Amino acid sequence: MYELGVVYRNIQRTEAAVADALAKFGSATVHEAMGRVGLMNTYMRPIYAGAQVSGTAVTVLLHPGDNWMMHVVAEQIQPGDIVVAALTSPNTDGFFGDLLATSFQARGARALVIDAGCRDVKTLTEMKFPVWSRAISSKGTIKATVGSVNIPVVCANALVHPGDVIVADDDGVVCVPRAMAKKALDAATAREANEGEKRQKLASGVLGLDMYKMREPLEKAGLRYID
Amino acid sequence: MYELGVVYRNIQRTEAAVADALAKFGSATVHEAMGRVGLMNTYMRPIYAGAQVSGTAVTVLLHPGDNWMMHVVAEQIQPGDIVVAALTSPNTDGFFGDLLATSFQARGARALVIDAGCRDVKTLTEMKFPVWSRAISSKGTIKATVGSVNIPVVCANALVHPGDVIVADDDGVVCVPRAMAKKALDAATAREANEGEKRQKLASGVLGLDMYKMREPLEKAGLRYID
Amino acid sequence: MYELGVVYRNIQRTEAAVADALAKFGSATVHEAMGRVGLMNTYMRPIYAGAQVSGTAVTVLLHPGDNWMMHVVAEQIQPGDIVVAALTSPNTDGFFGDLLATSFQARGARALVIDAGCRDVKTLTEMKFPVWSRAISSKGTIKATVGSVNIPVVCANALVHPGDVIVADDDGVVCVPRAMAKKALDAATAREANEGEKRQKLASGVLGLDMYKMREPLEKAGLRYID
Amino acid sequence: MYELGVVYRNIQRTEAAVADALAKFGSATVHEAMGRVGLMNTYMRPIYAGAQVSGTAVTVLLHPGDNWMMHVVAEQIQPGDIVVAALTSPNTDGFFGDLLATSFQARGARALVIDAGCRDVKTLTEMKFPVWSRAISSKGTIKATVGSVNIPVVCANALVHPGDVIVADDDGVVCVPRAMAKKALDAATAREANEGEKRQKLASGVLGLDMYKMREPLEKAGLRYID
Amino acid sequence: MYELGVVYRNIQRTEAAVADALAKFGSATVHEAMGRVGLMNTYMRPIYAGAQVSGTAVTVLLHPGDNWMMHVVAEQIQPGDIVVAALTSPNTDGFFGDLLATSFQARGARALVIDAGCRDVKTLTEMKFPVWSRAISSKGTIKATVGSVNIPVVCANALVHPGDVIVADDDGVVCVPRAMAKKALDAATAREANEGEKRQKLASGVLGLDMYKMREPLEKAGLRYID
Amino acid sequence: MYELGVVYRNIQRTEAAVADALAKFGSATVHEAMGRVGLMNTYMRPIYAGAQVSGTAVTVLLHPGDNWMMHVVAEQIQPGDIVVAALTSPNTDGFFGDLLATSFQARGARALVIDAGCRDVKTLTEMKFPVWSRAISSKGTIKATVGSVNIPVVCANALVHPGDVIVADDDGVVCVPRAMAKKALDAATAREANEGEKRQKLASGVLGLDMYKMREPLEKAGLRYID
Repeated sequence: MYELGVVYRNIQRTEAAVADALAKFGSATVHEAMGRVGLMNTYMRPIYAGAQVSGTAVTVLLHPGDNWMMHVVAEQIQPGDIVVAALTSPNTDGFFGDLLATSFQARGARALVIDAGCRDVKTLTEMKFPVWSRAISSKGTIKATVGSVNIPVVCANALVHPGDVIVADDDGVVCVPRAMAKKALDAATAREANEGEKRQKLASGVLGLDMYKMREPLEKAGLRYID
Repeated sequence: MYELGVVYRNIQRTEAAVADALAKFGSATVHEAMGRVGLMNTYMRPIYAGAQVSGTAVTVLLHPGDNWMMHVVAEQIQPGDIVVAALTSPNTDGFFGDLLATSFQARGARALVIDAGCRDVKTLTEMKFPVWSRAISSKGTIKATVGSVNIPVVCANALVHPGDVIVADDDGVVCVPRAMAKKALDAATAREANEGEKRQKLASGVLGLDMYKMREPLEKAGLRYID
Repeated sequence: MYELGVVYRNIQRTEAAVADALAKFGSATVHEAMGRVGLMNTYMRPIYAGAQVSGTAVTVLLHPGDNWMMHVVAEQIQPGDIVVAALTSPNTDGFFGDLLATSFQARGARALVIDAGCRDVKTLTEMKFPVWSRAISSKGTIKATVGSVNIPVVCANALVHPGDVIVADDDGVVCVPRAMAKKALDAATAREANEGEKRQKLASGVLGLDMYKMREPLEKAGLRYID
Repeated sequence: MYELGVVYRNIQRTEAAVADALAKFGSATVHEAMGRVGLMNTYMRPIYAGAQVSGTAVTVLLHPGDNWMMHVVAEQIQPGDIVVAALTSPNTDGFFGDLLATSFQARGARALVIDAGCRDVKTLTEMKFPVWSRAISSKGTIKATVGSVNIPVVCANALVHPGDVIVADDDGVVCVPRAMAKKALDAATAREANEGEKRQKLASGVLGLDMYKMREPLEKAGLRYID
Repeated sequence: MYELGVVYRNIQRTEAAVADALAKFGSATVHEAMGRVGLMNTYMRPIYAGAQVSGTAVTVLLHPGDNWMMHVVAEQIQPGDIVVAALTSPNTDGFFGDLLATSFQARGARALVIDAGCRDVKTLTEMKFPVWSRAISSKGTIKATVGSVNIPVVCANALVHPGDVIVADDDGVVCVPRAMAKKALDAATAREANEGEKRQKLASGVLGLDMYKMREPLEKAGLRYID
Repeated sequence: MYELGVVYRNIQRTEAAVADALAKFGSATVHEAMGRVGLMNTYMRPIYAGAQVSGTAVTVLLHPGDNWMMHVVAEQIQPGDIVVAALTSPNTDGFFGDLLATSFQARGARALVIDAGCRDVKTLTEMKFPVWSRAISSKGTIKATVGSVNIPVVCANALVHPGDVIVADDDGVVCVPRAMAKKALDAATAREANEGEKRQKLASGVLGLDMYKMREPLEKAGLRYID
């Protein structure tokens, strides 16, 4: 961390089969599977509803009001990547619009996660290029100062190393460290396996109180019923 | 208020005919009909656009990061109810997802209003189970501490007693105290009766200045026109 | 600025041909064309996605919780105008709903930009009357105090003179001063002319690094690549 | 709740001996003694450090930008009271300054707790009249609309009935319901009795882990030590 | 407005006698005297309590994260000036520290008002150089892009022309347009003349209700007393 | 990162001579010396003005509303340490008060940095135990769930490894990675060496424009002077 002015060209990406498989579980299940860590701040919102993606992180560290490094990171994108853009201090300017999206998409990027602003959201929606951002802003940026590409970054209060897996959907954005990705996938798969049955029971009117056997622990914890 | 660890099983719900009839007026008209009180903070937003509901409140008081009581409140739901979840301090975690929604829906709940986070919003949208929340978050919660069910709560700066009527739509969430519900319904009905005619006049180009006879009071208040 | 209790009836509007032509470029391109100034704060959001408008500003200064002047400004609307409503201090109440929208639309207004709350958003969406606001709120307002119409106002941190051009879309709201409008239109047209070609190049895989000849300046700025 | 335009002249205040005795414990201990409920939002901050008060609540409900009722509530103040001012929607205007403070102080008020703005803070500090507010603002207010005095109000997300006890200091503001006040006082006294001994032990280097016998439950909860 | 890259060297300052005389009234009285307009957003806070100043505005428009123009504006300072720094988009970086303060103070500046961050606040406090800012931040800035000096700016939602009077104290920051300054001074003087007598009356127990003859209008407005 | 339920007992602390020496430079100079990275969000504020410390980080990861691990981390404190407390999601509860402070101080801790709330601030001020926190809150916490001690954490958007150096003062909180600490100290020392001379020049009226030779680059960047 903290190296400025560097671009790491060779990063170790999480195995594609694992990175790709996490998307279908969604951020909530994956976050749960990881032990409830690695979630970005809830101010990170998708520019349109319904996108659900996973992919390997390429990271970029930007300065407020300066998107020069977005062009540098574009070259480092490989198919299946998700760009994660962090800032050295809070800023809502529109660092990313339809031209950069065209370039990112051409390189194979699946999404952008940026702790700053985004613009051209109508066009991005038509292009089906999803972005999770802290703001939407018409304001463009300058190209004056170098940051870094593919160093570890803190994005919206979550640590992201290049090559980690990003899972993003309407519920938010989760970062799965590379070393945990396979385990998280297995745990998510296991969780999901039980969900169908649980859902059916609950739909039939069985209460969570009974299904999860909560009545006794609740009573022990002091819960009283009053008629 | 302030009783912890209790579940009131018998609450006096507003008469269903009244509670149900308020939905069609929407939160703005009902709020107006009540004298402009009882509105939750505007940070409470629907997870999808277009839902418009009313129903009787069953309440639950939760601790930050702990959704145990959501399972307890589920049992107290009767058809036509809306669950109102308050917190002992601000928290954005995802207290509610598709499994709990399945259970709530099976019990007859019409909606959830929660001064915290919600998750699985894509699935909830498909299920047509509307939620008004202060945040959307993938983050799950623990089940460790008891709160209370069906005590009076303060949710997003509005006081809600069990059995009050909740009216919620794209404009926000209003709580109508049980004792005022019939009167609010009558007032809303009366307001609505005039709206059609007013709308027609305004659509034809008549100004509110003339329709409401504001020119004289404005002049008295000192308004001057300058050419 | 700062005159209270006055309504200017004669304002110099930007030429319609210019004001109308700016819409199609959108707020981001126009903001860029102006030199990146004149943007309202990013908390100003459209009540529904997809609207993209431009028009001449008629302005109104309101007091918190008091929408009396909205009826006064209605009379000053001419076809092609966009009403810009500023407040003397922050407030989120619902100053504007379907009745006022009916009136504004009947007078030829294209949109409302208000640094406060808006309500009846479902109906406004059906009416296709776009509003950019800082909040959505069911809460109505009183009619007790006079403000002013068609004085210069500061709305969401942007200065707006009556007759300026407002450009608003999903990316935000920009104010183009009357004296700059023709020049901004020309600059936007010029910018747009190049965009198609650029987009095509980027879509084909050419990098911005090469298209914009950034490699040399980046190296001069100290960027290093590490394998 | 929700009555507008009324002033209740006769309220049942918590017994003075109890209300007065709570001050010395401070808001944190009292809040703890009550079971961790009744705390106002943490955005409520004192205008100067060091004040620590308790007293009986007289309440007032205000509209945004309108402080007329502050003069009405002044008449209802009795020595030992603390005025609690709630708003019908968020507003930061300066509802209270040195003149009102002079009047409140002359009536025997000990403090003001207001979910809005305050001004003349330098003079209030010199007068030693403490205020807890959500903002500091030079902006004055109008006197146009009636609210209510001595109805139950929700102030900064806490419910306050007239006659309840307010405890406020640098840590925040707590409302103790009248019916709980004696019990809260006893509990606070009991808590405080143990604190001296605990503090001494901890100061001598004894760990909370040992003093509170946490090692075993932590191990049971799964905590592992790694060298 | 909106000229970038320019420095206006000759500005018309408000007469010193008027600009200087406003300080003693403080921002609340001056704001009141002006008709309650021209106040900056309440997020603008002094870095230390107790400073109370007035002076003529020299303005500077800055880009996020770039304080280059702070050195340019320094040269334009004359004794009795207050520097007002606006930003093209929200940013909290520390644009100003002890070295710039030394320079500003040497040039005769009385204060800085900046809609961004400030640092070295301990040293600035020792130097008695007051700053009103939206944030305090250790983060330094770059020097890469030109803004403008002595153009009209919008700072914290208030319009400031070079030469206007700034009045700032613990209650906030007000801008008095040059053309209104003499009138505002007279009005403030008149207001203050009455305050002593009012304060004495209120201190003696006379109620505002009686002193301002509010009982009748309150009754007309519908206020009822209930015993 | 992301290990839950573990306590690392052996961490590699930055050399004491280096960690201790950084305090006197303050967070702004150290942040500058590091290349402007590693700063916590500006919402982290000291509970009292004037404290200026540095020390080696021991870290703790907490759950919202649960301070159990604060007792666990206490045992890991060594003289010269600063405790850095991160949360799994935003929370403002009062995790830390005078009893824990007594324990931390007895163990030799110099300060606490916590991305949550703190209470008993009056007593902490008297004890001269400085805390930087995101909130002040009377609200206590439960002891139910294990987190971790001495794992890498993200606190207020900054990454902190156990053993890193924390530098905190009125300007904010900076984390200096252990591997960079010596270099940062040298750079800070070098920066400081020049500051005295610069300050003297600026105090004598020399402009930064001349001292830093900015006139030519500003002209090249397009700055124009207008008389």
